[in-house]
Amino acid sequence: MQVFVLRIGHRPGRDRRVSTHVGLVARAFGADGIIYVGNVEKSLLESLRKVVETWGGPFSIEVAPSYKQVITYWKERGGVVVHLTMYGENIEGSDVLERIKAYGRDILIVVGAEKVPADVYELADFNVAVGNQPHSEVAALAVFLDRLYGGKELLKKFKGGRLAIIPSPRGKKLIGAVDHE
Amino acid sequence: MQVFVLRIGHRPGRDRRVSTHVGLVARAFGADGIIYVGNVEKSLLESLRKVVETWGGPFSIEVAPSYKQVITYWKERGGVVVHLTMYGENIEGSDVLERIKAYGRDILIVVGAEKVPADVYELADFNVAVGNQPHSEVAALAVFLDRLYGGKELLKKFKGGRLAIIPSPRGKKLIGAVDHE
Repeated sequence: MQVFVLRIGHRPGRDRRVSTHVGLVARAFGADGIIYVGNVEKSLLESLRKVVETWGGPFSIEVAPSYKQVITYWKERGGVVVHLTMYGENIEGSDVLERIKAYGRDILIVVGAEKVPADVYELADFNVAVGNQPHSEVAALAVFLDRLYGGKELLKKFKGGRLAIIPSPRGKKLIGAVDHE
Repeated sequence: MQVFVLRIGHRPGRDRRVSTHVGLVARAFGADGIIYVGNVEKSLLESLRKVVETWGGPFSIEVAPSYKQVITYWKERGGVVVHLTMYGENIEGSDVLERIKAYGRDILIVVGAEKVPADVYELADFNVAVGNQPHSEVAALAVFLDRLYGGKELLKKFKGGRLAIIPSPRGKKLIGAVDHE
């Protein structure tokens, strides 16, 4: 099962840091890649690529001209599209996650910025709420992936990086070519 | 058990949106309140207060002059301090969450911005990693709270708000005094 994240509605400048967090969360919580739509800062993409270089992958970073194209292509390939929105079916207290998993297909997770075009609710196979309260697309993505993978994504071994952390109750312990940092 | 979030290292302007997301996540994932340290924009606090007004509470929003004061006070009152950091003990594959819960005490969750002062690692009773990869304090907070409360926080009923969402597979369904919006 491949899992990609589609970040829509990015506004240059204003959304730079939140969109970076979306990309970092996609990687750290086990997704195979992120696709940004529209006018994304090169520096944002570079900072994500640097994280992959330093901490490992594989993790794909792409930019697409239109969310409709990406969603349509994904569905044509037989994948399922999950839109995270506070208005959707609550992941807690409903069977929506089980229904998504039951498909056993590749998953495209769509996360928007403040305003999401109305057709996204229709194009998605599932509109899923990580709680029906306003919060953060970064949080929604993390919790959705954590539940999708059952927590095991937090033990994922990344390949080809230069650094790794040794978990520690105090301070910072790193292994790898820290002298190259 | 009371749970508060302490947001340290906020840089005005630069961290405005991410710090707002931290506050929204604290509320939506069941914490009792958030404490910001330092020079926080009034507009940030106002936007959080507006969310509590609109979507309900209770949820406390405070500003403190120093993180050391808050942490010291918390510990004197018998509370436990959990610092979320990628360098800490991994919440997955270790018993750190069980050890925290075993205390049965009020919890102060400390989340930093990019640079965290070294003494925070010492002042904290626990340094906990939501995975040992770089990602987002917003994501770390959400997943920590989701696991602490076992997911039930996403069904929490908030009181005194003007609006609530009816979960829906398509579109947006609201109840409440929408005409006052």
